[in-house]
Amino acid sequence: MTRIYNFAAGPSAMPLSVLEQAAAEMTDWHGLGLSILEMSHRSKDFIGIYRETVSLLRELYGIPDEYEVMFLQGGGHLEFAMVPMNFSVGGCGNYAVNGVWSKKAFKEAQKIGEAAEAACVDLRAPRQDEIKLTENASYLYYCSNETVNGIRYWYTPEVSVPLIADMSSDFLSQPVDVRKFGLIFAGAQKNFGPAGLTVVIARRDLLGRADPSTPTMLDYETYAKSESMYNTPPTFAIYIANLVARWLLDQGGVKEMQRRSVIKSQILYDLIDQSEGFYYNNVEKISRSRMNVVFNLKDESLNDEFVRQAYEKRLANIKGHRILGGMRASLYNAVSIEAVEVLADYMKKFAEAHS
Amino acid sequence: MTRIYNFAAGPSAMPLSVLEQAAAEMTDWHGLGLSILEMSHRSKDFIGIYRETVSLLRELYGIPDEYEVMFLQGGGHLEFAMVPMNFSVGGCGNYAVNGVWSKKAFKEAQKIGEAAEAACVDLRAPRQDEIKLTENASYLYYCSNETVNGIRYWYTPEVSVPLIADMSSDFLSQPVDVRKFGLIFAGAQKNFGPAGLTVVIARRDLLGRADPSTPTMLDYETYAKSESMYNTPPTFAIYIANLVARWLLDQGGVKEMQRRSVIKSQILYDLIDQSEGFYYNNVEKISRSRMNVVFNLKDESLNDEFVRQAYEKRLANIKGHRILGGMRASLYNAVSIEAVEVLADYMKKFAEAHS
Repeated sequence: MTRIYNFAAGPSAMPLSVLEQAAAEMTDWHGLGLSILEMSHRSKDFIGIYRETVSLLRELYGIPDEYEVMFLQGGGHLEFAMVPMNFSVGGCGNYAVNGVWSKKAFKEAQKIGEAAEAACVDLRAPRQDEIKLTENASYLYYCSNETVNGIRYWYTPEVSVPLIADMSSDFLSQPVDVRKFGLIFAGAQKNFGPAGLTVVIARRDLLGRADPSTPTMLDYETYAKSESMYNTPPTFAIYIANLVARWLLDQGGVKEMQRRSVIKSQILYDLIDQSEGFYYNNVEKISRSRMNVVFNLKDESLNDEFVRQAYEKRLANIKGHRILGGMRASLYNAVSIEAVEVLADYMKKFAEAHS
Repeated sequence: MTRIYNFAAGPSAMPLSVLEQAAAEMTDWHGLGLSILEMSHRSKDFIGIYRETVSLLRELYGIPDEYEVMFLQGGGHLEFAMVPMNFSVGGCGNYAVNGVWSKKAFKEAQKIGEAAEAACVDLRAPRQDEIKLTENASYLYYCSNETVNGIRYWYTPEVSVPLIADMSSDFLSQPVDVRKFGLIFAGAQKNFGPAGLTVVIARRDLLGRADPSTPTMLDYETYAKSESMYNTPPTFAIYIANLVARWLLDQGGVKEMQRRSVIKSQILYDLIDQSEGFYYNNVEKISRSRMNVVFNLKDESLNDEFVRQAYEKRLANIKGHRILGGMRASLYNAVSIEAVEVLADYMKKFAEAHS
């Protein structure tokens, strides 16, 4: 078997050792004679996996006791509705908009209730002093890493209202001071597990304020009260997330992931910046994402050839998001430094051959 | 490896051949050098899997073209909210209540809007002439198989409004005339795939009527318009459902599943009825579920020993739902006739030893 170098934006590369363990345990988990896929979510074995996964997350991020860790379904898009339904009752959701995902969240909040832009910038994160809350702000929402646009916040905004962050695409890629947040959510399919699982970390005292007409499954309190088992959770996805969390701790945790992310992203940004315009990236330097390196070829007519030749070298999924075009290399935790070096080497040679 | 006989109510037994294929393909799907878990949902390979799964379902149930087949997340509980949000606008959701699941759906509908009981009975399905719609009924909702209570509808209600059915626990276990329904939904984790996937089959002309303030992910139209890919779907769960659907066709389809279900359930009901009261089941005979055989031991003090000794014979997960107590053997498609015979043999000997 020849594995590819997978730069997909999500679902995305997973640690090979996790996949191998999942394969080995697929028909018989720990000698119990059944697959995780066949295991009741109310069994002590699955509850054990569930609780361990929560503990591993608490360890990885240093999550304080006063925060709930919950596992949901529906991805970021369902969170876009749940956040205003749970947190904007009687107030106005404030949104810092600087890319595709924060904009989508803002639009969904407008559909649900009162919402306003607290900032709106392109190709960068807004500065702290550019974020202006409305008087009746009930929270500030931002997206810590804009996957499509390749933009990251290099700082955590400080505000007088609960801070809510979509960390889908930089989850577990760096240390986070959870105490600064009211709620953090992340779709698992980048750095944590399979598609179909959403992690939510929320300050307990902020929950339970949703309107009584809120659908039960859209009230965070439902999950907080039931260890995320009000109904059947996505058991297999939680199991894979468990294996990924263990792998992360074995590798050295989020600090080590941050160290690698800096190296990996710097390799590509340096190459792009030194390519004399053959490749370019327009994102403000301090705001450049360490997870999703977006770039364009000056000569767009070379795009198809660039992608095709890359695939011949097993460098896969480097085409940009359909909205933006161009290229994008996603460098999640399971993408090795070696893989990025192979990509950089390819990019360098491609530029030389076509300059 | 010694596999157990798994009578769990869901997540539940899966075909061994499906698990073996999933294990074999886990690190490298079809020689592409990546796992399904790592595959972009927008890749042509995954879209191929997705479309094939829809086609297989259409083939299994004979689903007409004017019906959409959609894959969602959130389980039955999210459907409980989505049904009234999409179908009761300006009218009243009517519910035939005869067990835990139809009651839960009714309560959620009351939370969302106007809802009424069209029938309310215990230990059986209501007769056609017992179902009374309100004047402003916008649909009739029922649960074709009450998993907890072990009750099935032996007929399809005929009404003048769209018929909506929760088929979570008898999905793909028998032929269904889809044309009789406005919408069918099913959590996959009984007969179709992993937890975290919900299948919805809906008549296209009924969609698109939700209130504009409905969360995007709770509007069926969102899924119908995007081939269920408005956001990232639960890709691995859809892949497993694909393998299960193929297995079902190989086995002879839903007619063959119905034939086996009749045999399997009859083995247990006959044994219960002939046990001279050692075991009993209070469900009206014609309403007895073929998927979930609930029963009690007359001497409840034997419950723990019954469960323990069963497990020694690898007969697992026969304890009843926590709400009802007693016992429950779930006989989904992947539970073989042989497994049921082993269970029946055990039950017979246990009764003899304790009479």
